[in-house]
Amino acid sequence: MIARGLMLGPDQPVVLHMLDLPRAADALNGVKMELVDAALPLLRGMPALQPLAAVFSFIAGCKAYFALGATTNFETGVVATSDEAEAFKGVNVAILIGGWPRKEGMKRKDLTAKNVPIYKSQASALQQHAAPNCKVEQRFWWWLTPRTPTRSSSRSSPPGSPAKNITCLTRLDHNRALGQVAEKLGVPVGDVRNAIIWGNHSSTQFPDASHATARTELGERPVKELVADEKWLKEEFVSTVQERGVAVIKARRQSSSLSAASAACDHMRDWILGTPKGTWVSMGVFSDGSDRVPEVLFYSFPVTCEKGEWSIVQGLQIDDFARSKMEASGTELMEEKSIAINIL
Amino acid sequence: MIARGLMLGPDQPVVLHMLDLPRAADALNGVKMELVDAALPLLRGMPALQPLAAVFSFIAGCKAYFALGATTNFETGVVATSDEAEAFKGVNVAILIGGWPRKEGMKRKDLTAKNVPIYKSQASALQQHAAPNCKVEQRFWWWLTPRTPTRSSSRSSPPGSPAKNITCLTRLDHNRALGQVAEKLGVPVGDVRNAIIWGNHSSTQFPDASHATARTELGERPVKELVADEKWLKEEFVSTVQERGVAVIKARRQSSSLSAASAACDHMRDWILGTPKGTWVSMGVFSDGSDRVPEVLFYSFPVTCEKGEWSIVQGLQIDDFARSKMEASGTELMEEKSIAINIL
Repeated sequence: MIARGLMLGPDQPVVLHMLDLPRAADALNGVKMELVDAALPLLRGMPALQPLAAVFSFIAGCKAYFALGATTNFETGVVATSDEAEAFKGVNVAILIGGWPRKEGMKRKDLTAKNVPIYKSQASALQQHAAPNCKVEQRFWWWLTPRTPTRSSSRSSPPGSPAKNITCLTRLDHNRALGQVAEKLGVPVGDVRNAIIWGNHSSTQFPDASHATARTELGERPVKELVADEKWLKEEFVSTVQERGVAVIKARRQSSSLSAASAACDHMRDWILGTPKGTWVSMGVFSDGSDRVPEVLFYSFPVTCEKGEWSIVQGLQIDDFARSKMEASGTELMEEKSIAINIL
Repeated sequence: MIARGLMLGPDQPVVLHMLDLPRAADALNGVKMELVDAALPLLRGMPALQPLAAVFSFIAGCKAYFALGATTNFETGVVATSDEAEAFKGVNVAILIGGWPRKEGMKRKDLTAKNVPIYKSQASALQQHAAPNCKVEQRFWWWLTPRTPTRSSSRSSPPGSPAKNITCLTRLDHNRALGQVAEKLGVPVGDVRNAIIWGNHSSTQFPDASHATARTELGERPVKELVADEKWLKEEFVSTVQERGVAVIKARRQSSSLSAASAACDHMRDWILGTPKGTWVSMGVFSDGSDRVPEVLFYSFPVTCEKGEWSIVQGLQIDDFARSKMEASGTELMEEKSIAINIL
């Protein structure tokens, strides 16, 4: 998708850096062969220009890491490596969607313990080798504390400070919410917008359609009115989105794949190329205190993006029902953060 | 890729029909869930218009069938079924890339015997249920004889007769050939064009770079001159492309996946939307006797496409080396055809 222009636009040449564990080096090289075999015109090194893209594929046989970056590999535009320094060298965009997968019966605490060392090593390599202001899209490091929190950055730090450059993925949940509303209303999903995922990328997340709208013959209308079924919006919709990943695993006997890749692509595209006017998307970003979310947390908010910068949507009415759901997810994030800090 | 507009253009809504065996119904439904979860704006049924797309996924755990077609499934634009009649109903484009996979130690004759019954059942469903002039892109039915051969169709039959509407995939081999030339020359693959795959989609195919050109600072130049290594062009290049599938399997321990999907998409896109001026691609089409290829065979030729019709490139100089390679692949196709006819 990246090398076809779906993430960075149809005219943006890309160089893909793919990172995987040493034991997966052969398979990763096979992916590189396939990228060459696909004869993708956008996939190329351009020593004379500043190249823009790279992908890191990370292990465990199941998930992939991506990142955009510079390379001198003119011929193929693909770097396949198990060396973090090489993988992150000069990258402008890093998509870190790999990590220790959650196995059946594993507690979140155990999962965090497995992922903290991966984080430490990669964060250090990113800091040393990536291009300045590299944008980082990631799945597993919700508990980290960026060097410069957003609020102080808006006062004195330069733009592009770390807190601004790191976002967490909740786009799959966001897209699932749009999909469920579209199915309920029997309308094309492209006509529905402004669902929100609040909180954690876990089952405590709060999928909220109370601000969503849908295009109808009578113009843009609130989903709440069109659905006219408060029970569905507060119960079935919420639990369907929260538990969709489990339902997909049950059907496919594998975790989400095409929808996860599609969401990772949508997230970065909107961050870099901007959200359409009047449309917001959900992203985990470091809280600036908006909506009473503590300023020490990454938390999924509705955001709009312009010129490569995200901003939290302000001024939304939040009722008591939403507030209690949002706080429950925030409490879970606080607990996870304290576990991670203890391990760190 | 189809639902992102990469096959039929960025503004073409599509409906995907996915076909799989009954034992894979759950997994197929999981794919449908993921397509809904990806919130793809182009993926939608539009009862008021003639919808254009559908995908058939076929199993054996490894490959997928695709086809474009009509549906009344307004909400999701996805039909997941194990019923051929439902799958092929009203489809405008059918992408048949599934079939019995070749296992280690299996002879081609055994493979054909496994695939003929699949062909019989699907061909009959296509004929009964697909839209008129449905375009069929396929991998396994090289040995079939269309109702109306190309030559007579050019004299008296209407356009869109069966021979014109069925093409076989050699695009992956074609793209691999471009990739190998680009690597050899150290140029972006988008600057190389007009490689040819002659013959069968098998190891007897003849990858031919003798008519290919590459864009250089001095303009468009013959690859033959730029490579200046006849031995490489006649030996290493040919065998690398022929054996690339095996090399990918060796590295990934799985057969080609992203490159195969990418090639299937390129093939249909170029067929429907046209090849760029001055550029040809390779497709298996029913021979009209061009280049002395017998008129009873599907055979991979260089073709250009315009307004949804392919034409074999005429007037290429073919030397004795190429002729002998082309004839060897034609002989193999004749043998395979006679095996298939005996089974039929």
